[in-house]
Amino acid sequence: MKERIYSDQLHNFYNKEVLVKGHLYQKRVLGKIIFLILRDSNGLIQCIVEDEVEKEKLKSIMDESPLEIEGICKEEKRAPGKCEIHNPRIKILSKVNEPLPIEINKPVINANLDTILDHRAISLRNLKLRSIFKIQSSMAQAYREYMTSIGATEIFIPTIVGSATEGGSELFQIKYYDRNAYLGQSAQLYKQMAIGSFEKVFSIAHSYRAEKFGTSRHTSEFIQYDFEMGFIKSYQDIIDTGINVIKYISQYINKVNKEDIDSLEVSLPTLPKKIPQIKLKEAQEMIFKETGLDERSENDLSPEGERQISKIIKDKHNSDLVIITHYPTSKRPFYTMPDKDNPEDTLSFDFILRGEEITTGSQRINEYDMIVAAIYKKGLKVEDYEDYLEIFKYGMPPEGGFGMGFERLTQQLLNLSNIREATLFPRDVKRLRP
Amino acid sequence: MKERIYSDQLHNFYNKEVLVKGHLYQKRVLGKIIFLILRDSNGLIQCIVEDEVEKEKLKSIMDESPLEIEGICKEEKRAPGKCEIHNPRIKILSKVNEPLPIEINKPVINANLDTILDHRAISLRNLKLRSIFKIQSSMAQAYREYMTSIGATEIFIPTIVGSATEGGSELFQIKYYDRNAYLGQSAQLYKQMAIGSFEKVFSIAHSYRAEKFGTSRHTSEFIQYDFEMGFIKSYQDIIDTGINVIKYISQYINKVNKEDIDSLEVSLPTLPKKIPQIKLKEAQEMIFKETGLDERSENDLSPEGERQISKIIKDKHNSDLVIITHYPTSKRPFYTMPDKDNPEDTLSFDFILRGEEITTGSQRINEYDMIVAAIYKKGLKVEDYEDYLEIFKYGMPPEGGFGMGFERLTQQLLNLSNIREATLFPRDVKRLRP
Repeated sequence: MKERIYSDQLHNFYNKEVLVKGHLYQKRVLGKIIFLILRDSNGLIQCIVEDEVEKEKLKSIMDESPLEIEGICKEEKRAPGKCEIHNPRIKILSKVNEPLPIEINKPVINANLDTILDHRAISLRNLKLRSIFKIQSSMAQAYREYMTSIGATEIFIPTIVGSATEGGSELFQIKYYDRNAYLGQSAQLYKQMAIGSFEKVFSIAHSYRAEKFGTSRHTSEFIQYDFEMGFIKSYQDIIDTGINVIKYISQYINKVNKEDIDSLEVSLPTLPKKIPQIKLKEAQEMIFKETGLDERSENDLSPEGERQISKIIKDKHNSDLVIITHYPTSKRPFYTMPDKDNPEDTLSFDFILRGEEITTGSQRINEYDMIVAAIYKKGLKVEDYEDYLEIFKYGMPPEGGFGMGFERLTQQLLNLSNIREATLFPRDVKRLRP
Repeated sequence: MKERIYSDQLHNFYNKEVLVKGHLYQKRVLGKIIFLILRDSNGLIQCIVEDEVEKEKLKSIMDESPLEIEGICKEEKRAPGKCEIHNPRIKILSKVNEPLPIEINKPVINANLDTILDHRAISLRNLKLRSIFKIQSSMAQAYREYMTSIGATEIFIPTIVGSATEGGSELFQIKYYDRNAYLGQSAQLYKQMAIGSFEKVFSIAHSYRAEKFGTSRHTSEFIQYDFEMGFIKSYQDIIDTGINVIKYISQYINKVNKEDIDSLEVSLPTLPKKIPQIKLKEAQEMIFKETGLDERSENDLSPEGERQISKIIKDKHNSDLVIITHYPTSKRPFYTMPDKDNPEDTLSFDFILRGEEITTGSQRINEYDMIVAAIYKKGLKVEDYEDYLEIFKYGMPPEGGFGMGFERLTQQLLNLSNIREATLFPRDVKRLRP
């Protein structure tokens, strides 16, 4: 039997008999010829149908029919992949009986996002939408490749937890046998528990927040890249790792997914050798000075503030990424290390990429008495953290880490307007399907 | 500032000043000398303390204290890593005030599994237990590396679902805003929805089963390696991919984690070039003939049957892996493709590794009418599968896939007696912590 050839390899088989497979992407009748375009996992394949028997088979064929085609591969500069299949013999592998609910064989699907998501299994066959998730798959490989290269161990954390991990009320409750449990908000406590053994750990894990409002940058279930590292010299070690991994991912997809990125007509962010890093207070001053927006008495940047500081930094330093540090204790989770020089502030940071926060991290408290006091101070219950507290009793080195939103990063790298476009099957207050 | 050197690199720094970091693993006083052994993420480091000031620091030091040590690296054949730190200057990075709840600095922790799991964050610091999870991290890298090499796209599937995916009542219920939702039982429907676009997909995702009984091979939350592939020639394509990925993982960890495997004193499974593959009925006959165990009228193998067929195949063909095919329709999920030659049987398979099922898969039904009939026949509600059914309306190629239990595979590769030993933070009917 002939080996099956993928679209992007056909240029190696000119004037040879080949077998190709894929879904019917388009059919055009031009006089006595039918141009049939097949979509396989790697691209498009043009076939020229002239034979009457073969044309008869195509009479009532519907778009997306899965086909197997044998024919001769001919060089054709104007065709996709610079190749054309002549004298095709077509086999229809399964029947499509009705037209598609949305038209997917155009560059852009002419439907709103909700419709696209309702029909995700079908809309995903659109080339541009497919490109987003091919890039996302590579991003995950790149993240792991980088993490493995620095000696980090991948850990698999549980998503069912007995109590809130970070405090807060945005929890989904589970009926867990005879008691209640919750869906975990983050890998935080687990990755901290693991560094006493592995020193550097990473995970790619689901996190859950029962967000009551649907925004373009929040969903109820999302993937988080997590990293945690012991024996740090300072929180700068964590920031540097975060910067390096983003640069690595960006370079990786720029190499591996060149065509996907081109098809989306986006440019990847500009990431200079030295990424600007400023304290929150300085950022607030800068924003006020440059735009008049006064957030100087706030303990965080507003979404508008994030956009403005990003713009200022882009203009001044030609960087799409800016690191904001030293958020106040009141704004950060209990485990965040206060700044010795000014205990109202923390050794914490956010990464703002193209106007939106994509990463948050800090040095962590690593002394037992201090972490217990911090839990009390936030009004949380120490007994909920009994297992977690063991690590502080039995030796915790200076350490820190970050969490990076996987869909958020995809969104910002590819300039997508809604995080749902970067989520294969999103979940939110309204959406629980497909 | 001196660069920090890890234990496994010290042999490159003989007679040089080095900085090492880690937790205090052991302290032994021999006359006027204190032998101090440090554990870092890569191994052990021996330090010889003779200086009175340094010895004073160690007087009340507890095991697991995080330390930073500067000293001279000397060659010493009998020491771990063939190196010894002389003239150490010790800095205690944070204080440990009480002795450990379990003794971890022995080859084997002298405690039962429940105690080990109760103190997972601490027990994980034991070298053998750490090795298990270092190997597991590599297994995940190997799995992805192989999948990426065959052109598969990694997909990230949701874990919150609106209804049961495969039928069955072992579902965890979630309060999802104003309605009920469930934790997904498998990636099955989602990976099938994705192949129309990507053709080959894989995922590493959490699955959930509300198992009412604690067995040594079941937990409530587990990781599944999933693979699905369109345009197959037959279900043999899927079986071959499954065999290849297991071989790849085994070779990968044998290379990357040689020391971890040696420390666990296990031998990896024997996987010959040709892996034996037999039909269920033949396996049942064989078991009866060789052992007297009569399961010939059953529609599956019992756990004991799995152990027996594994033993028979190991004796006859020197393979630790055997593929059993053609399970009856009654035993397999609704989406399983029946065998045309005998519609009571299916084009399905299980992989039995060292006496235990680790992978299950099949060719899938890929026609709309047939899948709808199959859903009815299993007593499931067609309306629960509305989104899923779209893929069959709009062109589904011949396809199939498998699911492989990640912890189960770890357990069988490393000869562990309980799946909880291969699960970082296990969840079951009794256990919801740490």
